[in-house]
Amino acid sequence: MRIGRVARPSGPAYVVVRDDHAALIEPHPFTDFAVTDRVAPLDEIRLLAPVIPSKVLCVGRNYADHAAELGGEVPPEPLIFMKPSTAVVGPDEPIRLPTLSDEVHHEAELAAVIGRLARDVDPDEALGHVLGYACANDVTARDLQRRDGQWTRAKGFDSFCPLGPWIDTRVDPGQGLAVRCRVNGEARQDGNTADLIFGVTTLVSHCSRFATLLPGDVLLTGTPAGVGSLVHGDVVEVEVAGVGVLRNPVVAAER
Amino acid sequence: MRIGRVARPSGPAYVVVRDDHAALIEPHPFTDFAVTDRVAPLDEIRLLAPVIPSKVLCVGRNYADHAAELGGEVPPEPLIFMKPSTAVVGPDEPIRLPTLSDEVHHEAELAAVIGRLARDVDPDEALGHVLGYACANDVTARDLQRRDGQWTRAKGFDSFCPLGPWIDTRVDPGQGLAVRCRVNGEARQDGNTADLIFGVTTLVSHCSRFATLLPGDVLLTGTPAGVGSLVHGDVVEVEVAGVGVLRNPVVAAER
Repeated sequence: MRIGRVARPSGPAYVVVRDDHAALIEPHPFTDFAVTDRVAPLDEIRLLAPVIPSKVLCVGRNYADHAAELGGEVPPEPLIFMKPSTAVVGPDEPIRLPTLSDEVHHEAELAAVIGRLARDVDPDEALGHVLGYACANDVTARDLQRRDGQWTRAKGFDSFCPLGPWIDTRVDPGQGLAVRCRVNGEARQDGNTADLIFGVTTLVSHCSRFATLLPGDVLLTGTPAGVGSLVHGDVVEVEVAGVGVLRNPVVAAER
Repeated sequence: MRIGRVARPSGPAYVVVRDDHAALIEPHPFTDFAVTDRVAPLDEIRLLAPVIPSKVLCVGRNYADHAAELGGEVPPEPLIFMKPSTAVVGPDEPIRLPTLSDEVHHEAELAAVIGRLARDVDPDEALGHVLGYACANDVTARDLQRRDGQWTRAKGFDSFCPLGPWIDTRVDPGQGLAVRCRVNGEARQDGNTADLIFGVTTLVSHCSRFATLLPGDVLLTGTPAGVGSLVHGDVVEVEVAGVGVLRNPVVAAER
């Protein structure tokens, strides 16, 4: 099942996304829900970010090839940082390049979306707390990341967390899912979740041991090698095999 | 005016806190609001954290004496990190010591609460976006902070962001407010906002240039010298002169 979110006159609402249409679900995907017969053709709806999380927890250097390309070591434990919810945008929404940075990079990632509150959860129970998976782009001002030490600003700009296009509840990252990035159609990153140093079950467990994970919270699982610059006019795509493609245009910020 | 938050059968609600009673306000303090005549004596209400922020942005090494005691340099720009909203607790709620750390420190701080959306705001406009000020405790697992590099986990545990007891809308940190910490009545920290390296106007402006600040978001402005360990059974108090006292018991986590 693919769960998306759309804008309706009464406010944002969740839908099940099928081949050619979307059907409204009630009340929401974080409890028992019903799929209604209120449907709309896919070409008549605009998908929003599938969730606005209370927190986006992210993992640094979780693929060995990417750790190597930035000259970093693979950490002995998951290296956690956070993005603010104001960074989240949905499919087709622009990534705005800030005037404060001259080097903004794409980072294609698998995102896990929490479905059920998780506190101090063991790895073998972790998947029971995951609703499903989405594509994410951990957009990063690389120059500010180097300068600041703490990564909050470099990774926290408005629009620096594209998420979507929906939450797929069927795929299994444990089986190995290709994670790819294309810029203007050209391949930039081509990794596989089989190469995650810390897998989803470890990450959910690790994070739940310090912070209670709430329904709708998002875990970004790290990026494979091949990160690189985005410039005004680019179109960047993150594809997770079996999930879908998240596409965002890149624009210079207005000042 | 002092604005607090209380639990009511219909859900959390905001109140104005006066000398001996609290009066309900409607609809909430982030728009034009009215103070109603529905009042309760102070000894019959329990104050919650005055807000649950969409984000808590924090500043590292913003007092020279504290930067020195940790062996760090004063940064050339505000050093920003973030705590998750799940870390926020209110007055009298316990700080729970995690089993993952052997060295949990108090950090007494002035917190600024955003009242009006702020995006790319100049310093001289910043105060128009601040609703008021509260006491905060930037509780930190110092051992994990040293080990992890990124500070998200060390500062992000559930209960590691006591906030309160209310939001005072009258005080002016620019005039110099004492920021003190006591543990079991004994003085531990005694600083003054006059010694902030980056003041509130600079911090609001700086943060608003990367992330849109939403009503209810919180900025922790850094801690003065004197940080130290908390152990099971302690009672820690953060006092900001003119605002009030935020008191929290410290308990070992259950496992």
